[in-house]
Amino acid sequence: MTETSVILERAKTASLEAPLSSEKKNAVLLNMADALIHHTEDILAANEIDLVNAKGKISDIMLDRLLLDERRIEAMAEGIREVAKLRDPVGRVISETSRENGLIIQKVSVPLGVVAIIYESRPNVTSDAAALCFKSGNVCVLRSGKEAFSSAFAVVSALKCGLKKSGVSEDYVNLVEDTTRDSANTLMTSNGYVDLLIPRGGKGLISACVQNATVPVIETGTGICHIYVDKAADLEKALNIVDNAKTSRPSVCNAAEVCLVNRDVADKFLPMLSERFKNRTEIRGDKEVCSIINATPATDGDFDTEFLDYIMAVKVVADVKEAVNHISKHSTHHSESVITEDSSAAEYFTSRVDSAAVYVNCSTRFTDGGEFGLGCEMGISTQKLHARGPMGLNELNTYKYIIHGNGQIR
Amino acid sequence: MTETSVILERAKTASLEAPLSSEKKNAVLLNMADALIHHTEDILAANEIDLVNAKGKISDIMLDRLLLDERRIEAMAEGIREVAKLRDPVGRVISETSRENGLIIQKVSVPLGVVAIIYESRPNVTSDAAALCFKSGNVCVLRSGKEAFSSAFAVVSALKCGLKKSGVSEDYVNLVEDTTRDSANTLMTSNGYVDLLIPRGGKGLISACVQNATVPVIETGTGICHIYVDKAADLEKALNIVDNAKTSRPSVCNAAEVCLVNRDVADKFLPMLSERFKNRTEIRGDKEVCSIINATPATDGDFDTEFLDYIMAVKVVADVKEAVNHISKHSTHHSESVITEDSSAAEYFTSRVDSAAVYVNCSTRFTDGGEFGLGCEMGISTQKLHARGPMGLNELNTYKYIIHGNGQIR
Repeated sequence: MTETSVILERAKTASLEAPLSSEKKNAVLLNMADALIHHTEDILAANEIDLVNAKGKISDIMLDRLLLDERRIEAMAEGIREVAKLRDPVGRVISETSRENGLIIQKVSVPLGVVAIIYESRPNVTSDAAALCFKSGNVCVLRSGKEAFSSAFAVVSALKCGLKKSGVSEDYVNLVEDTTRDSANTLMTSNGYVDLLIPRGGKGLISACVQNATVPVIETGTGICHIYVDKAADLEKALNIVDNAKTSRPSVCNAAEVCLVNRDVADKFLPMLSERFKNRTEIRGDKEVCSIINATPATDGDFDTEFLDYIMAVKVVADVKEAVNHISKHSTHHSESVITEDSSAAEYFTSRVDSAAVYVNCSTRFTDGGEFGLGCEMGISTQKLHARGPMGLNELNTYKYIIHGNGQIR
Repeated sequence: MTETSVILERAKTASLEAPLSSEKKNAVLLNMADALIHHTEDILAANEIDLVNAKGKISDIMLDRLLLDERRIEAMAEGIREVAKLRDPVGRVISETSRENGLIIQKVSVPLGVVAIIYESRPNVTSDAAALCFKSGNVCVLRSGKEAFSSAFAVVSALKCGLKKSGVSEDYVNLVEDTTRDSANTLMTSNGYVDLLIPRGGKGLISACVQNATVPVIETGTGICHIYVDKAADLEKALNIVDNAKTSRPSVCNAAEVCLVNRDVADKFLPMLSERFKNRTEIRGDKEVCSIINATPATDGDFDTEFLDYIMAVKVVADVKEAVNHISKHSTHHSESVITEDSSAAEYFTSRVDSAAVYVNCSTRFTDGGEFGLGCEMGISTQKLHARGPMGLNELNTYKYIIHGNGQIR
């Protein structure tokens, strides 16, 4: 039996224990937050090991993501305290029916059970994911990328101290110690032990999980988000929205990558966009775009690329119909926006674009658990089963039917 | 490009068409029902081919499942008419929030897109599945078992006539003509074309889909259902419930396979059960059971078998805790029932048993879309993601967020 299987056995056992009350869970979360602060020195020492190992091997942006300091640990603890304040998703009666035969059928929210999360280098994912799973009644099995393993280990050790101090099983939060592919493969194929696998990271990781997992997976993250500037758009509004969606934080999944411009307004809008992006953001335009403004000629691949950078692919389209067709072929079904003052164009767009979040006259950057009022999120689902868009605490629950009778037979 | 890929391309295109109104969908469903009746002769002739081919190769029970007659075709048509009467699941505003920044965020139900269904020999599944998918706004790609292919082809041809007569695309309902493993494998791995794959059939089919599919799958059907007779049970009630759950229709997934009896009442209850089952239903008992009544000694495997027959595995347990532990190890998470007049034992059982439907004092046979008031069902999900228990029209929808703004940026 591998170390990962042993952890899964313990996780499964913990998941079958009596559900904790909301009060108890919240008290435990506060103890977990305190424990993080209390172990600041250990965590920083462990993080130093990761940083030294990683130096020269990963980009500066990635190094910065990996870096912890007192302020960041304080922020992680504060994140856990915020989760403690959220409403408990477990035990909601989603619906209740009384049948003619006297049966009372309740549909009640319950935890999924064991949630496995495979993620990359950000150490704060460790505490965020642990807190969200714990609050939603789930047992988590975390598998950090190897670059961040020492930090993740120190964070989980601290969280386990918080669990222990609260008098509950330390097995609610688990970290897989094997950072090779073996452990990822075990998590992907442990049917009966893993109720949900959430990959959080790049396209390669997510696609490996989708291709190889036999346990249920929720795809998260990849975002080739589009903005369509309609002929009935308020062009000033459009300009601010496209600029914000592209440049306010290009490295995140809800940043826009592609702008589709209606031919009727292209002559006017493209020069405005070119002026706004000048020296700061590269426009890769199709032939028609390049005939109107100075732009890098786009390759076909540019319309299927999540740049995560100051680059935007831009294309001229005839109408909202062509825009919707383009999106249906190239989108990752994350977030798309239409900019128009024409309500029938907006309605055409929102009813046909098959993405988690479809916007009218605002930035795609709003696809986020906090912005949607969920209080937090475990990731942005880009698939259609179970959860779509930001996954908050409710989305980390399933339901069961509880039926009370008095001897009914069929 | 294989024939199956061509069908998937057409299905995808149809799924991107403008959504039909409820009125239109209902009118089309009535035309589909009429077309079935109108093509009765063709369907019976095709069914005759399947029956002749199957004779001697499959059991009499399976032959009966395969058999169509006028009455059964009328029932299939009536089934479609019933679906027309149900509430349209598409376009429900599941929630709506206004944010401080003025964004209005609606969570709206939408079809999944393309739903593929791999099933075995019952021809009525063809029309049921087509009707449920159509009503829920989905395009279906059906893959019948080869034993029932001629019948399925004739049924789908009739349904397509109904679609054509209604002036909508015939591509809403599709049948894969290749009945080899190739087509099943294509459906399992066509990410981007198949939004949901539902296997309906035996354990082998379901497990092949779970192991090999890269598209999202919902596991249905396998039911090793348990009834626990507590020490505080009303034993007459218990007897009627166990008898009903086991023998009213042993071949279905919500039939009980295992009975767990509290030691305190075993001496009294087991002879009652033995007397009720006499000459009709075999009891396979553990050692303790066999020391109290005449029963076939159970093997370990008997507690992990979906008999689908007049056979029940019976075991004595110390208390509700041991019953719950046994169920957690052996259940397929379909339906379990506790028989007790003690509300704390009932609460212990319902809060810890991790199954789609958990009953108190009634038969497991009620796990059914009709009995739950859903009006119909596509199958019983035994997994936790997306849908659990009977899957009705709502469960054949996903949702998307539609967000209206007025220039908001982040």
